[in-house]
Amino acid sequence: MLVVMEHGATDAQVARVVAVIEEMGYQARPMPGAQRTSVGLVGNDGRIDGSSLEALDGVAEVIHVTKPYKQVSREWRQENTLVTIAPGVVFGGTEIPIIAGPCSVENEAQIVLAAQQVREAGGAALRGGAFKPRSSPYSFQGLGVKGLELLALARAETGLPIVTEALDEEGAHRVAEIADCIQIGARNMQNYALLRTIGKLGKPVLLKRGMAATITDLLMSAEYLLAEGNTQVILCERGIRSFDSATRNLFDLTAIPLVQKLSHLPIVGDPSHGTGLRDKVIPMGRAAIAAGADGLLVEMHPNPDRAMSDGGQSLFPEQLARLVREARAIAEAIGRSITPTPSAPAGTASATNG
Amino acid sequence: MLVVMEHGATDAQVARVVAVIEEMGYQARPMPGAQRTSVGLVGNDGRIDGSSLEALDGVAEVIHVTKPYKQVSREWRQENTLVTIAPGVVFGGTEIPIIAGPCSVENEAQIVLAAQQVREAGGAALRGGAFKPRSSPYSFQGLGVKGLELLALARAETGLPIVTEALDEEGAHRVAEIADCIQIGARNMQNYALLRTIGKLGKPVLLKRGMAATITDLLMSAEYLLAEGNTQVILCERGIRSFDSATRNLFDLTAIPLVQKLSHLPIVGDPSHGTGLRDKVIPMGRAAIAAGADGLLVEMHPNPDRAMSDGGQSLFPEQLARLVREARAIAEAIGRSITPTPSAPAGTASATNG
Amino acid sequence: MLVVMEHGATDAQVARVVAVIEEMGYQARPMPGAQRTSVGLVGNDGRIDGSSLEALDGVAEVIHVTKPYKQVSREWRQENTLVTIAPGVVFGGTEIPIIAGPCSVENEAQIVLAAQQVREAGGAALRGGAFKPRSSPYSFQGLGVKGLELLALARAETGLPIVTEALDEEGAHRVAEIADCIQIGARNMQNYALLRTIGKLGKPVLLKRGMAATITDLLMSAEYLLAEGNTQVILCERGIRSFDSATRNLFDLTAIPLVQKLSHLPIVGDPSHGTGLRDKVIPMGRAAIAAGADGLLVEMHPNPDRAMSDGGQSLFPEQLARLVREARAIAEAIGRSITPTPSAPAGTASATNG
Amino acid sequence: MLVVMEHGATDAQVARVVAVIEEMGYQARPMPGAQRTSVGLVGNDGRIDGSSLEALDGVAEVIHVTKPYKQVSREWRQENTLVTIAPGVVFGGTEIPIIAGPCSVENEAQIVLAAQQVREAGGAALRGGAFKPRSSPYSFQGLGVKGLELLALARAETGLPIVTEALDEEGAHRVAEIADCIQIGARNMQNYALLRTIGKLGKPVLLKRGMAATITDLLMSAEYLLAEGNTQVILCERGIRSFDSATRNLFDLTAIPLVQKLSHLPIVGDPSHGTGLRDKVIPMGRAAIAAGADGLLVEMHPNPDRAMSDGGQSLFPEQLARLVREARAIAEAIGRSITPTPSAPAGTASATNG
Repeated sequence: MLVVMEHGATDAQVARVVAVIEEMGYQARPMPGAQRTSVGLVGNDGRIDGSSLEALDGVAEVIHVTKPYKQVSREWRQENTLVTIAPGVVFGGTEIPIIAGPCSVENEAQIVLAAQQVREAGGAALRGGAFKPRSSPYSFQGLGVKGLELLALARAETGLPIVTEALDEEGAHRVAEIADCIQIGARNMQNYALLRTIGKLGKPVLLKRGMAATITDLLMSAEYLLAEGNTQVILCERGIRSFDSATRNLFDLTAIPLVQKLSHLPIVGDPSHGTGLRDKVIPMGRAAIAAGADGLLVEMHPNPDRAMSDGGQSLFPEQLARLVREARAIAEAIGRSITPTPSAPAGTASATNG
Repeated sequence: MLVVMEHGATDAQVARVVAVIEEMGYQARPMPGAQRTSVGLVGNDGRIDGSSLEALDGVAEVIHVTKPYKQVSREWRQENTLVTIAPGVVFGGTEIPIIAGPCSVENEAQIVLAAQQVREAGGAALRGGAFKPRSSPYSFQGLGVKGLELLALARAETGLPIVTEALDEEGAHRVAEIADCIQIGARNMQNYALLRTIGKLGKPVLLKRGMAATITDLLMSAEYLLAEGNTQVILCERGIRSFDSATRNLFDLTAIPLVQKLSHLPIVGDPSHGTGLRDKVIPMGRAAIAAGADGLLVEMHPNPDRAMSDGGQSLFPEQLARLVREARAIAEAIGRSITPTPSAPAGTASATNG
Repeated sequence: MLVVMEHGATDAQVARVVAVIEEMGYQARPMPGAQRTSVGLVGNDGRIDGSSLEALDGVAEVIHVTKPYKQVSREWRQENTLVTIAPGVVFGGTEIPIIAGPCSVENEAQIVLAAQQVREAGGAALRGGAFKPRSSPYSFQGLGVKGLELLALARAETGLPIVTEALDEEGAHRVAEIADCIQIGARNMQNYALLRTIGKLGKPVLLKRGMAATITDLLMSAEYLLAEGNTQVILCERGIRSFDSATRNLFDLTAIPLVQKLSHLPIVGDPSHGTGLRDKVIPMGRAAIAAGADGLLVEMHPNPDRAMSDGGQSLFPEQLARLVREARAIAEAIGRSITPTPSAPAGTASATNG
Repeated sequence: MLVVMEHGATDAQVARVVAVIEEMGYQARPMPGAQRTSVGLVGNDGRIDGSSLEALDGVAEVIHVTKPYKQVSREWRQENTLVTIAPGVVFGGTEIPIIAGPCSVENEAQIVLAAQQVREAGGAALRGGAFKPRSSPYSFQGLGVKGLELLALARAETGLPIVTEALDEEGAHRVAEIADCIQIGARNMQNYALLRTIGKLGKPVLLKRGMAATITDLLMSAEYLLAEGNTQVILCERGIRSFDSATRNLFDLTAIPLVQKLSHLPIVGDPSHGTGLRDKVIPMGRAAIAAGADGLLVEMHPNPDRAMSDGGQSLFPEQLARLVREARAIAEAIGRSITPTPSAPAGTASATNG
């Protein structure tokens, strides 16, 4: 931490900063400059609240040098963390899993058909919301526990592991009973109570970046999960707020190599929410792979025109197949590969035969 | 709702849009234009998910004309809602209450002294966090239930009503037992499970705008509270994300007259989080009053240099007194007044005598 | 300047940073920390391009401690700069001038009537565009030199000094012949060729903040003017880009006290562009005064419904009169006053008599 | 254009809107709705300033249906425009040219060596600034005309066409004499005087997106160039402002497919400015190709540690070679290819032999 004094700060003001730092139990190292003096704080263990130093007379600014996160950092662990949500479906290695499925679970026929279509397109996991965070209290809020049961049924039919969102403590326990990976949505990225609850459940977690979250904010929220002992955390870039309403969100693909440098955790891209526009999902899904994403999360619906939510950004099944083909070509161009679809359970029929 | 077709959309594509709208149970009104055809949807009750119309061939854009919120709207209720958190402390009328106090409740001496200082400065309510949402899992997280008890003690000493934050379902019940007004923080503005829980508690609520929330998002979150039957809702502008790191957040004061036009709910300003800089709190607190704010929420600490959190943006007690004086002058200039401090309980001592 | 090394940077990497700094002619001061080493650069005269230090192996980050601007800084000059655009119309002192008028000069009758209405409402200067920067090449681009002549006529009729925008080098010379203050628009804030040209003209300048400009960017652009020897510079906050389309721009009033702390130059607020909504101009104009603005710049049109540009954000004449009255009350509440309207030239008629 | 009335607007207010629209020479089509009436304006030729309709009593909002640009639109021209800056170096077709070189031209040895290195790495054109827009008036501003001469020399040595920036009218004429493509920088995207001047020069133009420009703003600025008769326009995404300081700008790759749908003009990506971080240039350059970019613009310097500007985001020569290789693999994966390096002039030596 570096405490930058105002131009013209007095010796007494500098001395007081030194005294407060030493009182806190750290070393202070004053560094006079041509225009202003700075005081370095040595020994920062990442727990200092710099705000009280900012409050001292003559202080212009407090600059944080030490990163506020620890366990998520690549300085804590050098090698990539591999997150396995089902046999053969691993995030953070050379293979890149594609998770796809509808925004919401609507009924048995829809989710089972969707799962079969994801399989056939080459996806490795099924997404689908049972508990939906909707901006309107009057919108469809998901089928709840019934939706979880239908997801389990779709898994039994297709062998695809399940990624689905939990919104609150009770729901998190129900999701953990059934899902292979618990999703924490963008709006809950800083819901610390939920992070703590889910951190304790011992299941893989997919943590989405909040709409106004910096990379540091995202890593700090992941730190809550690791602090509870759960290291099986997948991060997800899904678009942030920006000033141009041409897209629903601004898909920040640079977040992918940034996170990969700062952290050992895998990061996937969600081009569906990242753009909000169906015809941008394929090019931006490809771009995410090219940027180095460790996976994709994509909305696909058997019949987008009739979807109960997010129809306008959901791919048609044949578009998902095309995305997987193009993602495979891009992955190979950079020395990686797309995770193969897990084998189907014995005795299940495919979508085309079903 | 207006469905704008692409330039060159075929008659068949327009006909399909009309058919889908009618199938949904609404009327369709095609409107050919010089460059492109639009189709108006008549009879929208605010429950349509336009996304599936966007998905139809030949559709360029779906424009929402109807606001997605209802009960929070001034079209639903013309007169201002008055929110009373204690006798004489009313938000939404001519009088403007000032809520002040430390970021966190730290111990009995600190919070009781702070409450006395708020009284003497002319504040109408005491704020102080017992449950703190901290970006780091290793930071001080608040005293929890013990903090609530200390707030109750400070109220007993000074007569000031209490505003304090709840972070989760269990905490909300505990906060509701003691607080006069339950705060929902910016990070939880779209924590819909928490909104529903708190909406049912029947206590006044102070709902802070999220860092990436539009005015519509804020009103939609308030709609969750009203949909549970609670109309005692105070909104709060506390700064949003922007590109300039010169301030912690960007204090969006235009939100105040905007909300007041669109909604009947009162809105207050929080210049402490809105700027993050102590020496900007007084001018921006004044500016909030001049913009028409129905209240202020301000951080003040008996000894900011030793605060356990947010010291750098907390006022000194004498600065709070100055802010109240200047706010009073501004309020009078626009025909309003600052709510007087509630009378102290019989037999309590003042800060200076205590 | 502080060069922060990566965790695990080698001694050789630190030594190379030291060597490069010394080679540049500065002193290097290594500062080992608990987690990482930093190297302070002492003697920075503000001309170093830190980018090449960032490029060295083992460097995590380069932190700038010295501000990049000089002459605009309060460290360069402690007292407020007073900018006088006409006798008695001074920015930066206790008195606050209000500049008002239409977006565009449209014809003689319109601009003379507007000027008379500004006078009667209590304004101190007339604004009006002769050269208009329009986002469409097909929109009305202003009357050009003819517009300047009409502004001169309006000044002759009313005694109000003129503030008008220049868009390019040739236009700047024409504007300088007639105007009392040359405006540089938001879109040209970083048009350095124009800044240099106008800096040499020796006329007062009103420099608007760009839509994506940080406070530092704004001050750096002002530095271009001062570097050419012109210290008569008024800054202007007029709203920046944000994610909420509820307003045309986001009016960043905290910029006012921020600039006043960092710089000796006066700063005014433009609530018309800052909000883009007529009914928000009065509350936000008041708020700007309460935040400490050294002036207001407001759009008013004799007949906004028929304005050739910006009609929707222009005040009606009687609304301007109300804004001035309310601004006066707010100014008095904080110990300042609104600059009185300059006396009219002998023999001119008022709007009501004319 | 759709004029949305307030809930509760009177018949007289609707009638006045109809009257004003008809007075403007268009047809009005009122459309009563369940909650509010809208009035469609039929026959909009794109020249209406909706602002005066917004100003009418009872109007809630004016929604623009017609795009404000014309000639840049795909509705104006269906096929891609091909922009040829030199024989075989074409933007907008299947082949993708890579433009590379230093931020600034520093001296003959540097720019000639850089050009040779660009050739050998597989680039198709040379970039290098002679006139530099710098945020500080005290920073190196480029070699000016001398820099242009050195670029011409580098072209003569290597056969690479030249892309370089013009900052003002006089400079634009000098740049046009020498360059193969004139760059308009992000800070000048809305410098309309410069757009008009350069639009008349009849040379290919590379127009960079401004830091706060929406896609519509970018296309409107291009419209200025086309309105002067120049259709040889290449657009460039180079990062916009966002709230996270982890990168210099936020590289908005979705802009690429967005622009390609809305316009017939080619668009390239600049990952150097888009990220500001050398080690993000390769992954984000790959991602731009995968998103469909029609070219790349990349900073490379023979010795980045000694660069006079932007050293920290400039690639080393061998990194550029790697980027070209990886871009080639990605391009092939999506059915495109990287433009081959133009043949060298007879009798010139290569970098390695030179």
